[in-house]
Amino acid sequence: MPKIIVEVMPKADLLDPAGKAVANALQRKGHAEISNVRIGKRIELHYASTPTDAEVEAAKQIAADFLSNGVIEDVISVTVEN
Amino acid sequence: MPKIIVEVMPKADLLDPAGKAVANALQRKGHAEISNVRIGKRIELHYASTPTDAEVEAAKQIAADFLSNGVIEDVISVTVEN
Repeated sequence: MPKIIVEVMPKADLLDPAGKAVANALQRKGHAEISNVRIGKRIELHYASTPTDAEVEAAKQIAADFLSNGVIEDVISVTVEN
Repeated sequence: MPKIIVEVMPKADLLDPAGKAVANALQRKGHAEISNVRIGKRIELHYASTPTDAEVEAAKQIAADFLSNGVIEDVISVTVEN
């Protein structure tokens, strides 16, 4: 099934308490090589047929307006996957 | 900074209420082309230097044991990004 994958991450200069908690837990478990963890979202939009250019543009708009909060998050990619 | 990206999605045969709510909202807004939405996680593990093969294997184990719940989620990819 054709999909558009939208990836959203917390902004780099923003604290990510859940990610920090995971990083601390991994360090306690002996994974000193992992310096930090950030947790974001991976959103799949499913399409019946390969999205047209206009539908890809619409998906970018949806990602910016609707799937992410621009105050605290960045849309890092919008990718078509067939 | 070198990273390992872990992508986790709800299992295909599982309801994803948040995804379903987004899909319904998009359809109400006129995006009939989007048949379904699934919401998963994108987790970045940060490393000081490019992860060794052993560290990549450790990250795969962490992804399966610690970053996902095997009952309801699948780890769909573990990728090194430099």
